[in-house]
Amino acid sequence: MTTPLRVALVGLGTVGSGTFNVLNMNADEITRRVGFPIEIKAIADLNVDKARELAGPGVEVSNDAFALVSRPDIDVVVELIGGYTIAKKVVLAAIEAGKHVVTANKALLAVHGDEIFAAAEKARVMVAFEAAVAGGIPVIKAIKEGLAANQIEYVAGIINGTCNFILSEMRDKGLPFADVLAQAQALGYAEADPTFDIEGIDAAHKITLLSSLAFGVPVNFGKAYVEGITKLTKEDIEFAEQLGYRVKLLGISKRTAAGVELRVHPTLIPTRRLIANVEGVMNAVLVKSNAVGPTLFYGPGAGSLPTASAVVADLIEIARLKDAPLDSRTPVLAFQKDRIAQSDVLSMDKVETAFYMRLKVDDKPGVLAELTQILAKGHISIEAMIQRQANDESNTAEIVLLTHRCIEGDVNKAIAAIEALPTVHGSVARIRVEDLS
Amino acid sequence: MTTPLRVALVGLGTVGSGTFNVLNMNADEITRRVGFPIEIKAIADLNVDKARELAGPGVEVSNDAFALVSRPDIDVVVELIGGYTIAKKVVLAAIEAGKHVVTANKALLAVHGDEIFAAAEKARVMVAFEAAVAGGIPVIKAIKEGLAANQIEYVAGIINGTCNFILSEMRDKGLPFADVLAQAQALGYAEADPTFDIEGIDAAHKITLLSSLAFGVPVNFGKAYVEGITKLTKEDIEFAEQLGYRVKLLGISKRTAAGVELRVHPTLIPTRRLIANVEGVMNAVLVKSNAVGPTLFYGPGAGSLPTASAVVADLIEIARLKDAPLDSRTPVLAFQKDRIAQSDVLSMDKVETAFYMRLKVDDKPGVLAELTQILAKGHISIEAMIQRQANDESNTAEIVLLTHRCIEGDVNKAIAAIEALPTVHGSVARIRVEDLS
Repeated sequence: MTTPLRVALVGLGTVGSGTFNVLNMNADEITRRVGFPIEIKAIADLNVDKARELAGPGVEVSNDAFALVSRPDIDVVVELIGGYTIAKKVVLAAIEAGKHVVTANKALLAVHGDEIFAAAEKARVMVAFEAAVAGGIPVIKAIKEGLAANQIEYVAGIINGTCNFILSEMRDKGLPFADVLAQAQALGYAEADPTFDIEGIDAAHKITLLSSLAFGVPVNFGKAYVEGITKLTKEDIEFAEQLGYRVKLLGISKRTAAGVELRVHPTLIPTRRLIANVEGVMNAVLVKSNAVGPTLFYGPGAGSLPTASAVVADLIEIARLKDAPLDSRTPVLAFQKDRIAQSDVLSMDKVETAFYMRLKVDDKPGVLAELTQILAKGHISIEAMIQRQANDESNTAEIVLLTHRCIEGDVNKAIAAIEALPTVHGSVARIRVEDLS
Repeated sequence: MTTPLRVALVGLGTVGSGTFNVLNMNADEITRRVGFPIEIKAIADLNVDKARELAGPGVEVSNDAFALVSRPDIDVVVELIGGYTIAKKVVLAAIEAGKHVVTANKALLAVHGDEIFAAAEKARVMVAFEAAVAGGIPVIKAIKEGLAANQIEYVAGIINGTCNFILSEMRDKGLPFADVLAQAQALGYAEADPTFDIEGIDAAHKITLLSSLAFGVPVNFGKAYVEGITKLTKEDIEFAEQLGYRVKLLGISKRTAAGVELRVHPTLIPTRRLIANVEGVMNAVLVKSNAVGPTLFYGPGAGSLPTASAVVADLIEIARLKDAPLDSRTPVLAFQKDRIAQSDVLSMDKVETAFYMRLKVDDKPGVLAELTQILAKGHISIEAMIQRQANDESNTAEIVLLTHRCIEGDVNKAIAAIEALPTVHGSVARIRVEDLS
């Protein structure tokens, strides 16, 4: 019982060094919990000198991850390099060598998860990835175990801190997207190339994983609908506010009779909902289940120590379960491998949500009648409307609409018809609305 | 692998019937997760007829819990009778018979937990109690496992839905305590005898358990400071609002160098904090830890199906772990039994918080000087102040103060000195303030 768990750490960037630091600073508390220490035996990083400086004596440092991962004195490989290529090879090599794997790599798992999970199953090792979604919030454990008595209905999460920071600042300060993005980059909240974050891809990786865990379906990243925040204007955010809503980038996955919804897009949420009040770089995941109802899990979604907290929690779990029979482990996707459902991802034009629309029209009689006729024909009913005359000489007005829930395909057709009207100028801005009650 | 987990359900009230219903309505999903069914073999309830009607054929129904709990065809006993007396005997009899135990009984565990956990340890069985705190929110699992990499700094929870409903309504509608209590009773949110809820005892049971789980200390209910919400006025709630705060009944436990704080009392929280916006009967637990920082867990804290969700999650965990080696289970109080710390509970007069104070004074020069002098002498500095003249002929004024953080013992002395001033009328109302940043 006093043999330490022996860890090889691959990749010593933000999360890697955080993992090293958490294991050090909380070593006593972790031993109080586990009964024996968790020890980093070896580190692989291309920058060997930096790694050696951090690790100090007694930890082997190498630039060859593949040499490390098959060593007999290693129980667990922690993959923190990121990306699809080398990371995938390292993870598969570790699994093949019979090592358990902990990773924070959502991109890898959202794309190659099925292959990796199958390999782990065959090798009878654990693959743990609490750090891959919502950083330090233990939401994967909550979905896999805490809510296991439920049929989960949907998961909706603010799971990209960069986007949430940008949207919070746009609203708070009334600034346009580009200005706030530049500010986020200066503060280190957005990368030099922010595409993965602001185009919703990172959130789509994460909601793909949550979807698989919630419903027991294969990873479906390729079928996810992904829309980022780059086209949001501060006007839309202000109008939403006036209507009692806040705009958030949500990853949403929902179980319906026709298939699983899997989508990332800006969303209007009623301001009175707790999740609408999650601001700045913080993350939150709302899970709606049939027995418990709504539960929300909130905390830091990124950062060195918060993400490391999740990595080390996985190590603690592996320390407990590595010598236990296989079926005492929670299955990697929360459901028994022979009970994974092959549900289709619902195509976006069949998805039902409410809509916010904003359009510019000629400010003259009859325009509104044309508009509402088109909507009515498309089975789209209006819940609220704001009309605002332009301040200039253009003799136009801006119309902002909230619809009741309707089918996206119907909305697409209606918008095409509206945009074809000679009295309508430019295109119709539209944002989906979710009540999340 | 296809043998079901065999459950005896003792007590068929709100949570008991909820447990029965969740196991039925989600039977397929649970089997998808666990790999085999969880089956209620027997039910004990004093009302045998009602139990028989709910259970239908195939489930044995009895009014003798003790006969059930030692049967060889039972793996787990679910105790849902509540209270200290019979519940304790049933739980100990089940443990002695080698059965695992699931219970929602916070009162029992907060008072007799150490004895029960020791008996379970000796009998090598699990005692699981996710349902005992915050109903359907899987916060016990989060603290024991999800945040296991951390040194937890404090736990602060809205863990009594009755009180939170009353405080939400008082603020929303500007009504006094007594009126809202009556309304809560009519709605079924408060019991006919609401003492346990409104005096903070139920919250104290729960924070006692969270404290033991967060810090690895014995259950210390007898040493908890407990103050309910019965003395809160709608004026205090309004003043708090003006100052940017919301009043919540919090259970708080904090690790300090001098000992563990363990306390339940009304608390002013900055309105911008997420937890300040938890309204109605909902619960939320904020956990501040040294690696991840703040995390919040939100959801329904009571009710038949939500609480049953937690009971059944515990059953699922027992189903997985019952045949595993002992050390593959997370210890009952999250820390190894030989590492439980014997930390003292810090006496209340040594606790540091900020304070809200409200008092009535003569509206004449010099009064404020006397007041601030007393506070300064007691090392209490003022952060904000509101003064409001009385609308009547009394020539008095109401003064509302917010202090910076200070020591409760100092505040007690200062308040005694202030109340002794001839220019001060009646007693000083005071509510603790926590920033929860």
